[in-house]
Amino acid sequence: MSDGAAPGGIQRWAVKIEYDGTPFFGWQRQKNGLSVQELLEDAAARVAGGRVVPSITAGRTDARVHASGQVAHLDFPAELPLVERAVREGISFHMKPHPVAVLAAARVPLTWNARFSAVKRRYCYRILNRPARPALDVNRVWHVKFPMDLGAMREAAGHLLGTHDFTSFRATSCQAKHAVRTLERFEIVREGEVIAFYVEARSFLHHQVRNLVGTIQLVGCGKWSPERVRVALEARDRKEGGPTAPAEGLYLTTVDYDPDPFGGPESGV
Amino acid sequence: MSDGAAPGGIQRWAVKIEYDGTPFFGWQRQKNGLSVQELLEDAAARVAGGRVVPSITAGRTDARVHASGQVAHLDFPAELPLVERAVREGISFHMKPHPVAVLAAARVPLTWNARFSAVKRRYCYRILNRPARPALDVNRVWHVKFPMDLGAMREAAGHLLGTHDFTSFRATSCQAKHAVRTLERFEIVREGEVIAFYVEARSFLHHQVRNLVGTIQLVGCGKWSPERVRVALEARDRKEGGPTAPAEGLYLTTVDYDPDPFGGPESGV
Repeated sequence: MSDGAAPGGIQRWAVKIEYDGTPFFGWQRQKNGLSVQELLEDAAARVAGGRVVPSITAGRTDARVHASGQVAHLDFPAELPLVERAVREGISFHMKPHPVAVLAAARVPLTWNARFSAVKRRYCYRILNRPARPALDVNRVWHVKFPMDLGAMREAAGHLLGTHDFTSFRATSCQAKHAVRTLERFEIVREGEVIAFYVEARSFLHHQVRNLVGTIQLVGCGKWSPERVRVALEARDRKEGGPTAPAEGLYLTTVDYDPDPFGGPESGV
Repeated sequence: MSDGAAPGGIQRWAVKIEYDGTPFFGWQRQKNGLSVQELLEDAAARVAGGRVVPSITAGRTDARVHASGQVAHLDFPAELPLVERAVREGISFHMKPHPVAVLAAARVPLTWNARFSAVKRRYCYRILNRPARPALDVNRVWHVKFPMDLGAMREAAGHLLGTHDFTSFRATSCQAKHAVRTLERFEIVREGEVIAFYVEARSFLHHQVRNLVGTIQLVGCGKWSPERVRVALEARDRKEGGPTAPAEGLYLTTVDYDPDPFGGPESGV
């Protein structure tokens, strides 16, 4: 029963989860610190009576990156009599007291894959743009003290929309086979003292959102012209792109599937 | 210089501050734990080269209650050459790494008093109303799992608006001379998974907002009729009121003065 084998095949469950990334070493299992994956798989194993329950996620978020709608799938032994509520509440319970909660769970076919079935990923990046440092938003925003020019940032974002080779904005350690991606949305909105960046694509390169925001921030503060962002993009050279924005401002908000395994009327917002 | 005396009179400064109440034993100085008042006065004393700088606040928030726009005044020795930026940034700096920030500072006349000059206090109370426990909003909301009836809560809130004797909703330890207060606003709004209560009055009794929300929550969950709230109010008996909602959902958002010492175009929203 608890030797980790799944002799009778598997049943696959999709879970939607929310987490505060602050205390974690990122999504992916690490030797040197607690990851969301380890916490999730260990909680699922408790639900499965000690059996190993491997997971695949839609997005391997970095250390300190948050999620309000991360999606993963879990492969449980087929013979377990699992129902939605037990999966959702059981895993949430066993992840206490860490700041991770299961928002929804759904049985999915074995052909469904949290990573490869995703048709869109949506991120939000939040800059707190005021002189005073964050108090209520500690670890939840990038604090930029100096006034930012929204119009210039939007002009720069316009150069990035659509299909491009994003080599200038991918981490040098990025393992994707090529750097061509299609940015479907790059919207910049002022929400009180926060400047929020809404970014959407089918998939992203490693550090892509943070590198794009870190570059656009230079435009917002007047250090770069919007035009220089276009030049940097066309250079296809990471050295021409701007710096990587801090992890703590980034949120994976939604992953879209068609159809939505969680039964929402439509995917996302 | 550092004996604590202020032989040459005082200069009064108003400060607007934001804090995450989670790590504090409330506003008021305590023997058994760190308070916001102690942190603020000690930071102001650092700015004042070791001189004692007493404070008075607009609202003595309880332990774990948050503020996005708390106001206090500080009495510095008159002879110190203080300017707005030094007061604002200096105090903020000396409160690091605690989650408290000074948003604004302004010199005010000695007739001005953060507590007695306030013409309105505005609070927001946030309930996270969904089955899953909070992850991103740990310590920032009251988690209520069961669906709440917004219409019934609004009907109950209607009974509380206006001028009443709020004895049924004040802490038994409340030291105010009488319990008559005027609730100028009690609005209940659904904001995604959050139900937000916006409450405004010139002044409040001890625990009044939390007792009102704790009572209305019973209406939202169907345990009380809206009418029972009216009956409880008229009983003028704390035993007839509902329970005290948890501190962590409460935010002091704005304190209004006329004129606004921080020079805003108009006070608050």
